[in-house]
Amino acid sequence: MGELMLHEDRLFPSEPSQRGIARRLYGEVRHLPIISPHGHTEARWFADDQPFPDPATLLVTPDHYIFRMLYSQGVPLEALGIADRGGGRGETDPRRIWRRFAGHWKCFRGTPCALWMTHTLYEVFQVRETPSAETADRVYDQIAECLTRPEFLPRALYERFGIEVLATTESPLDDLAHHRRLRASGWRGRVVSTFRPDPVVDPEFEGFAANVRRLGELTGEDTGAWRGYLRALEKRREYFRALGATATDHGHATAATADLAPGQCEALFGRVVAGGASPGDAESFRAQMLTEMARMSVEDGMVMQLHPGVFRNHNRALFEKFGRDMGADIPLATEYVRALKPLLDRFGNDPRLTLILFALDETAYARELAPLAGHYPALKLGPAWWFYDSPEGMRYYRWKTTETAGFYNTVGFNDDTRAFPSIPARHDAARRMDCAWLARLCAEHRLTEDEARETAVDLAYRLAKDAYKL
Amino acid sequence: MGELMLHEDRLFPSEPSQRGIARRLYGEVRHLPIISPHGHTEARWFADDQPFPDPATLLVTPDHYIFRMLYSQGVPLEALGIADRGGGRGETDPRRIWRRFAGHWKCFRGTPCALWMTHTLYEVFQVRETPSAETADRVYDQIAECLTRPEFLPRALYERFGIEVLATTESPLDDLAHHRRLRASGWRGRVVSTFRPDPVVDPEFEGFAANVRRLGELTGEDTGAWRGYLRALEKRREYFRALGATATDHGHATAATADLAPGQCEALFGRVVAGGASPGDAESFRAQMLTEMARMSVEDGMVMQLHPGVFRNHNRALFEKFGRDMGADIPLATEYVRALKPLLDRFGNDPRLTLILFALDETAYARELAPLAGHYPALKLGPAWWFYDSPEGMRYYRWKTTETAGFYNTVGFNDDTRAFPSIPARHDAARRMDCAWLARLCAEHRLTEDEARETAVDLAYRLAKDAYKL
Amino acid sequence: MGELMLHEDRLFPSEPSQRGIARRLYGEVRHLPIISPHGHTEARWFADDQPFPDPATLLVTPDHYIFRMLYSQGVPLEALGIADRGGGRGETDPRRIWRRFAGHWKCFRGTPCALWMTHTLYEVFQVRETPSAETADRVYDQIAECLTRPEFLPRALYERFGIEVLATTESPLDDLAHHRRLRASGWRGRVVSTFRPDPVVDPEFEGFAANVRRLGELTGEDTGAWRGYLRALEKRREYFRALGATATDHGHATAATADLAPGQCEALFGRVVAGGASPGDAESFRAQMLTEMARMSVEDGMVMQLHPGVFRNHNRALFEKFGRDMGADIPLATEYVRALKPLLDRFGNDPRLTLILFALDETAYARELAPLAGHYPALKLGPAWWFYDSPEGMRYYRWKTTETAGFYNTVGFNDDTRAFPSIPARHDAARRMDCAWLARLCAEHRLTEDEARETAVDLAYRLAKDAYKL
Repeated sequence: MGELMLHEDRLFPSEPSQRGIARRLYGEVRHLPIISPHGHTEARWFADDQPFPDPATLLVTPDHYIFRMLYSQGVPLEALGIADRGGGRGETDPRRIWRRFAGHWKCFRGTPCALWMTHTLYEVFQVRETPSAETADRVYDQIAECLTRPEFLPRALYERFGIEVLATTESPLDDLAHHRRLRASGWRGRVVSTFRPDPVVDPEFEGFAANVRRLGELTGEDTGAWRGYLRALEKRREYFRALGATATDHGHATAATADLAPGQCEALFGRVVAGGASPGDAESFRAQMLTEMARMSVEDGMVMQLHPGVFRNHNRALFEKFGRDMGADIPLATEYVRALKPLLDRFGNDPRLTLILFALDETAYARELAPLAGHYPALKLGPAWWFYDSPEGMRYYRWKTTETAGFYNTVGFNDDTRAFPSIPARHDAARRMDCAWLARLCAEHRLTEDEARETAVDLAYRLAKDAYKL
Repeated sequence: MGELMLHEDRLFPSEPSQRGIARRLYGEVRHLPIISPHGHTEARWFADDQPFPDPATLLVTPDHYIFRMLYSQGVPLEALGIADRGGGRGETDPRRIWRRFAGHWKCFRGTPCALWMTHTLYEVFQVRETPSAETADRVYDQIAECLTRPEFLPRALYERFGIEVLATTESPLDDLAHHRRLRASGWRGRVVSTFRPDPVVDPEFEGFAANVRRLGELTGEDTGAWRGYLRALEKRREYFRALGATATDHGHATAATADLAPGQCEALFGRVVAGGASPGDAESFRAQMLTEMARMSVEDGMVMQLHPGVFRNHNRALFEKFGRDMGADIPLATEYVRALKPLLDRFGNDPRLTLILFALDETAYARELAPLAGHYPALKLGPAWWFYDSPEGMRYYRWKTTETAGFYNTVGFNDDTRAFPSIPARHDAARRMDCAWLARLCAEHRLTEDEARETAVDLAYRLAKDAYKL
Repeated sequence: MGELMLHEDRLFPSEPSQRGIARRLYGEVRHLPIISPHGHTEARWFADDQPFPDPATLLVTPDHYIFRMLYSQGVPLEALGIADRGGGRGETDPRRIWRRFAGHWKCFRGTPCALWMTHTLYEVFQVRETPSAETADRVYDQIAECLTRPEFLPRALYERFGIEVLATTESPLDDLAHHRRLRASGWRGRVVSTFRPDPVVDPEFEGFAANVRRLGELTGEDTGAWRGYLRALEKRREYFRALGATATDHGHATAATADLAPGQCEALFGRVVAGGASPGDAESFRAQMLTEMARMSVEDGMVMQLHPGVFRNHNRALFEKFGRDMGADIPLATEYVRALKPLLDRFGNDPRLTLILFALDETAYARELAPLAGHYPALKLGPAWWFYDSPEGMRYYRWKTTETAGFYNTVGFNDDTRAFPSIPARHDAARRMDCAWLARLCAEHRLTEDEARETAVDLAYRLAKDAYKL
């Protein structure tokens, strides 16, 4: 298990006729520019263009896919240098963190982490040894050495990765200072923000009331009143758009939407902004705000993304010690058909709206999402998300959506990552899996190879660019 | 993408050993007569035996699979000549409708529509060009020319398609005049009705109260009273049976059944027939009526079909303008285990009952439906339905039901279509997919080819004929 | 269909490169000892070591997988010699029971029963004819003759099967007399019990109150009081452990857990032990008892297994006549994320707890179970269970859990059977399916064959041994 392998035919079907077609299709798309319309990298990296600090801080500590698995196998978060709420970090030596990761490499067998990390090590850092307790130090040193070189600075990597556009995600309260610096810098890379209003539209978000006040300060609107609050949001959307943003994103516990009368909205807003909203009010308010956001999208043209259906911060002890996003977010069964109806009743037939739906409940793909997207002009399906941003997750997604929604009610790939060096690995996996899927359709004579070739390019490049108006 | 292809090995696995077995199995079943025990063609076509009007009216306008997809891609229903509630049709030129369809052919890649339409164009109309904006007029002309010829009259097509029996679906209020004319005509084709009582058993059906009164007029029973209402239904079942019907069909929002005491039934009936039933009363009444229908089936031998689990007419604006069945029917998570218990407690062990269950929630296949059908003598599983009447839908159905229910608690294929020219395409796809599934079991040495050959014939022909008593 | 086949490559993928890898991997694991950490064989068989009575009593009558299918096809349980509540057995001639089974062999095509029975007949009894009405008597005679020979006694079979350890399942009220006799016998086989407290922790279990009283008598504790009741359970766990048990098992209607304050527990216990607990109280009590059992596991080291999510004894008429476990247990949609939170809040991060989760709702694999097990140190995933203990069930399990939970948050295979002669068949099927899965990962270059070889051994042997502390 010594030599690290990155096989040229990885992820392709092993049946030779399918593999042959997959190779040919992949040949058409492998070098297309990367459109990354949804993710969590930081504009600061590209604005500052400073070296990444060390292998563990770059590749292990920020990646909840990785530390989640290590934690499940008994590695405490403290031993991985995860900062707690007080700022304490436990282990501070990045080399020892890397060793812990490398010593547990076996746990990742069969997971997308193994795939992404292998690709990253092999292609980005030219590593040729499989991570293990034995190789940990050598691999660490090799990566660390790379990180000192100019061709591993953020902008150089962006260019080497062939990225055409990269979207980050920010709160309406963010001043987008890094984005402004980037724009002013003259660098030719295109890094745009995405408007993610959860902190000011979810009454259960930490600091909601203060966030809403801050929103008022930023915009000069009276966010203590419903109308002022909406105008403030419109102004911040405009601010984001002026800096290149084309999309909004909404991470909600459910897909619930509402379409309340204005008087009801005002009263509801009054209750939630006063603090201590009941769970029912909080849910109603989030639901109403999705419809308000759709209305604003109809007006200003921003593409809307909805990511519902997760129980966040499920592990109480970890949440109390370390805070949010500690790998303890667990999907829930998610209903879309009744939930989206109020919003769709208003805007589902409006050609000005694009609402991209994501899911962590794969049972909704064929039952609810493909039939909805295969009917409503305003709806499109986002790619397989989070736990399903994986070879089998992508295969399942195409399997369960294509027959009812087709390829052309989907929007290409999102890498959705903060692990910047893994972006090529993720897009490469998506391109391979889509080519593998198309190859199967061709090999079973359900699609001609000419058709598949055009569709492969659409899935790898054009659909994302068009859907996100990039 | 010019030449239209219909490959001899389409839908078969590409792995050569599986493909070889699939070909041999398919060779045993491809020319078997078609048993079509459930569908939505019109008896009138065969009674009148007049030419179909034009390509768009035959192949596009009535097919909600097709116009649903076009609508999702921004084509208004008006542009497809769909009649609104007032009878207005927007586009009235069938050639322009056909052009819109052909120009969007790409959207159907990977969908069963592409498969069915390709088969229909290729085999029925001898078309050899892929639909596109460029070929639209030529293809239109070719089909239009065919439709003028005697061998494209409904009866000629029925015979050419090798149909042995074809079931239509009618309301108890239908006088079955076309069926009677057909019987009187001396034509040797067998077209039978199916008794679909939704308009008189669902209190939320449009015109329910008037429908129940009409039921009374047709039968001379007092349908204002529970007993008379039941007798009226029994009489209409008898009327349908006398014209060849062997089955009933029930399209309910859920699979709920009930077994209320007679006094409760009377009171409930009184409330629903008086109009304005509460949603709870409506659901209870539908639930009770499934059990009543099962009781009648035990008595008169009609096979019972249950199609639950869909949110109908989800798109409010379309429903208001165009009415029912506009492609906006979306499946819902559907529970069967608790829902069916009242009915099964009464009749689940009765050898006189056959209740065929369908599902739009694929998660129920392995979890609920296969275990139920693999236990109760009265239950059988209907084939993959509606959105899942597709190659991958069929594959998934076999994958998720066979190990627990076997093949012999299933009932073969239903085409369930109003797209008459696509009937051979649909049965062919089902036969191919079943042969592909059996071929895999053989290639993995889980079944011998002798066993598979017998089962392939059962799935293509015998099971449907037996289950529906045809 | 005459000759019975057991192909050397059965269950392997037919694609040659995958098949070649699968064969090699299987070569590494096929002869490993069998670890059977969860099942329903009887210690008495091994303590007495007497001949099994006849083919039907050994292979048909006790196997609800088999009689369930026969029943669905119209064979009354009476005709299979199933004893009713009064002890009546209908058919008493085992040869006639065997004939009925053999005559319905076709119904089992594509089911795991066919696979297990074929393996059992072929390997254990050297049968070479496919069961059928024609061959029934010859096959019966051949098995019956075998059963008279010493090498077919229970201990001889245990040894021939290569079993290293076999766990049975008993109630806390069981005196484990057979286990004690076995221990005293000097036989080298290792047969241990599993502590299954459902009869004394489920207020809806038949005879619950009497069971709790009996628990008090057995332990000398006052089981009329909450504290005494808990101490009594602790004592019985200790008794089981002293006889080799390492695990507990819990069969609950749902996965609900609770963590009530001591005063609430006492009051709740008072209500349920007084008899006539409301359904809500019964559910709360079961939920609380799972957390109590987790607490005891933290203290005494017993591994905890949870098998939730089934509607038991769904067929009312059969239950009334024949009692429990008549093949009418139907899975239900099962929620784990909210249900397990109270228990996980207390013990989810405790390295002393191992809680192994099973599921009959496959939709929970990817959505809930893999994310939970891929995070919480205390959680592991049990193998595909019951209806899914089948080739496709196992394939689906690996497909839906591996990418998020990896292989190393799973615990190898459980045969979970009372069909003792089928134990090798079941482990063989599991080993083949895991090798097939690994082979696919290798053939698609997602895993090296060196890695797969090590993992194959872990899945076949080591993980079960480690997880169950055997």
